[in-house]
Amino acid sequence: MDKERLTLEIPYGMRDFLPTEAAEKRAIEAELAALFAEWGYDEVVTPTIEYLDNLTLGASRALEPHLFKLFDKDNRTLALRHEMTTPIARLAASRLRDYPQPLKLSYVSSVFRYEQTQAGRQCEFHQAGVELMGSATAFADAEVIALAIQGLLRAGLTDFTICLGQVEFVSGIMNQYQLTDETKQTLQTALEKHDLVSFDRAIAALDLPEKAKKTLGYLPVLNGGAEMLKKSYTLALNEQSRRALDNLAEIYRLLQSYGVEQYVRFDLGIIRDFSYYTGMVFEAYTPGLGFPLAGGGRYDHLLSDFGSACPATGFAIGIERILLALTRQGLEKPDQPKDIYLGYAPGREHDAIQKAQELRAGGKVVELALLCQTEDDARAMQQTKGYASLVYLA
Amino acid sequence: MDKERLTLEIPYGMRDFLPTEAAEKRAIEAELAALFAEWGYDEVVTPTIEYLDNLTLGASRALEPHLFKLFDKDNRTLALRHEMTTPIARLAASRLRDYPQPLKLSYVSSVFRYEQTQAGRQCEFHQAGVELMGSATAFADAEVIALAIQGLLRAGLTDFTICLGQVEFVSGIMNQYQLTDETKQTLQTALEKHDLVSFDRAIAALDLPEKAKKTLGYLPVLNGGAEMLKKSYTLALNEQSRRALDNLAEIYRLLQSYGVEQYVRFDLGIIRDFSYYTGMVFEAYTPGLGFPLAGGGRYDHLLSDFGSACPATGFAIGIERILLALTRQGLEKPDQPKDIYLGYAPGREHDAIQKAQELRAGGKVVELALLCQTEDDARAMQQTKGYASLVYLA
Repeated sequence: MDKERLTLEIPYGMRDFLPTEAAEKRAIEAELAALFAEWGYDEVVTPTIEYLDNLTLGASRALEPHLFKLFDKDNRTLALRHEMTTPIARLAASRLRDYPQPLKLSYVSSVFRYEQTQAGRQCEFHQAGVELMGSATAFADAEVIALAIQGLLRAGLTDFTICLGQVEFVSGIMNQYQLTDETKQTLQTALEKHDLVSFDRAIAALDLPEKAKKTLGYLPVLNGGAEMLKKSYTLALNEQSRRALDNLAEIYRLLQSYGVEQYVRFDLGIIRDFSYYTGMVFEAYTPGLGFPLAGGGRYDHLLSDFGSACPATGFAIGIERILLALTRQGLEKPDQPKDIYLGYAPGREHDAIQKAQELRAGGKVVELALLCQTEDDARAMQQTKGYASLVYLA
Repeated sequence: MDKERLTLEIPYGMRDFLPTEAAEKRAIEAELAALFAEWGYDEVVTPTIEYLDNLTLGASRALEPHLFKLFDKDNRTLALRHEMTTPIARLAASRLRDYPQPLKLSYVSSVFRYEQTQAGRQCEFHQAGVELMGSATAFADAEVIALAIQGLLRAGLTDFTICLGQVEFVSGIMNQYQLTDETKQTLQTALEKHDLVSFDRAIAALDLPEKAKKTLGYLPVLNGGAEMLKKSYTLALNEQSRRALDNLAEIYRLLQSYGVEQYVRFDLGIIRDFSYYTGMVFEAYTPGLGFPLAGGGRYDHLLSDFGSACPATGFAIGIERILLALTRQGLEKPDQPKDIYLGYAPGREHDAIQKAQELRAGGKVVELALLCQTEDDARAMQQTKGYASLVYLA
């Protein structure tokens, strides 16, 4: 008994997709892959295993404990990819280096991170996304945001919000008060974790005029529509933070051209949990899900870490999170059709095989019985297995 | 320079799929998934990482050095899945235990094995296949073989052979001469590796009558059509080996009902490299590729190792091997269409976005320029990027 329980387990944070779940996953991934192709993005596939040094190239030190590590035969440290932006940056800087720019790339992949698990948050999970490399324009940022919105719509979601920020705005505000690197780090960590208590405590402890503290204190709550963006200019005292707001205003104007501005709100406290972001950043939220469905942003330095300087922007959508949101919101998910269960009397095996082949050639989903059976037994099986109709060869 | 080369590497046996390759991979995987669904097989997805003990449950000791191992936080040994039959057997014996039988399951997955690499043989590779659980009939075996043949056809191959064997035939022949377990192991290893020299040497060293040695010596060369199967009965001196031949004859008759017997030859020396096989086994070969495109067989004991006795049969097709065979044979591979490159003059950004959205809604693949450019520059870009036509907003 003990042995049996043991051998049926899967490791912490892992998940099996049963037939209905796997069909939903396939349908949504296929929709997203088709959408990305329609926008001119080419899919790439990178290995599940990379050198640890490569995966951590643009990342903070806090990443490493979250990686699944292993060793190659020469004892070099490898790790399972934890996201797709870094591997694709490596690929863009190597074998795709001489491809015509801008490079528009997409992926549908599993990624791995040690995390405390909960529904929609596993240690192995699946992402679909794009990376647009070779353009520093707001036009490129608007394209990836618009594409993320189309992706969520195409997956079947209707009620979601894109929260849009700019890491240079946060950085500019911090620079205008000449905060130390240590203080910046403390504030950024609190922002990343949406930990308002720690954020406020850290600000209260600063040796700064009250007005400066008040401005910094606004950071996590600067969210709203276009009017909020306008008001934020009053906090932006230096070139860096003003430029960041100009960039967001331009992106927003382009999103209006796409006709998707109703999905977009500003949230200037968003900085995301990857340290490689250098410009606009965004996260998609939906009611009833406490973490983002999708996220992305601009990362203009990551490719130069791989020896090939190139501005870039992109996003990833979490497949499991989409599936969870669709379920929680009672929305329709794609399903596999089950057309015909084909049963037959003794001696009709040959005819049954030919009939099954004929029906399948006509586009039907057909399950062929593996043994002859009575018509009643065949009907019972058809119903148990959920097929729409029975064909029986008597 | 050294640092740069270092950071652009990927680990031994890993592979990147560039745009064209990834598009071919996606198209073939989608075809196979659709085919399996048409035959009533439900896709499942299992985790990339499993407990080592589970993966090695039905396997020989020779497997372990080929696994990618890692450790969980409690120091239990995990490994990356090396095939899909064992994880799906685990799933069938646990969460799918109460599903109506027969269970018809399919998968499209990456798997991992340390191997000496060569073209079509990497340490991470992709497989699509099915597992049919809950039927011990030849009818079930014929269904999976016929489905494998359809899969290869659907992937675009035309010139291939299914080599069909039966592990009980080989076992029966060995039993009729009462070989020791050690001798059996030596002969089986040589058969698995198609190593005729070692095989003949091992037989020459046996203390057996010449007639027995001659019969054993035939094993690796018993391949041919239906007439060869008939002749093999003269070698089958015990019930076990005769029954194995009867089973193959019945499977062959059913494959004739499917109209696919022209793809099938017998090769009674085939035993496959997984020790869990208990009945018919098969491998698909194509000219110019020195290893199988696909393989499978019956495994009636693996599920009982997971505590839920149940006969089963199935196969896996190697995606990279299909792609390699299509290339080597100069056959057409599916490709991504590239319809329209959309360029625009200064000030036409808004109109260009709307035009792109309109064309995409009409089903076109459209790459939108990220910057305004002259019509000549736009045409040059359209050609460089391989788009069929240019739309330019002046």
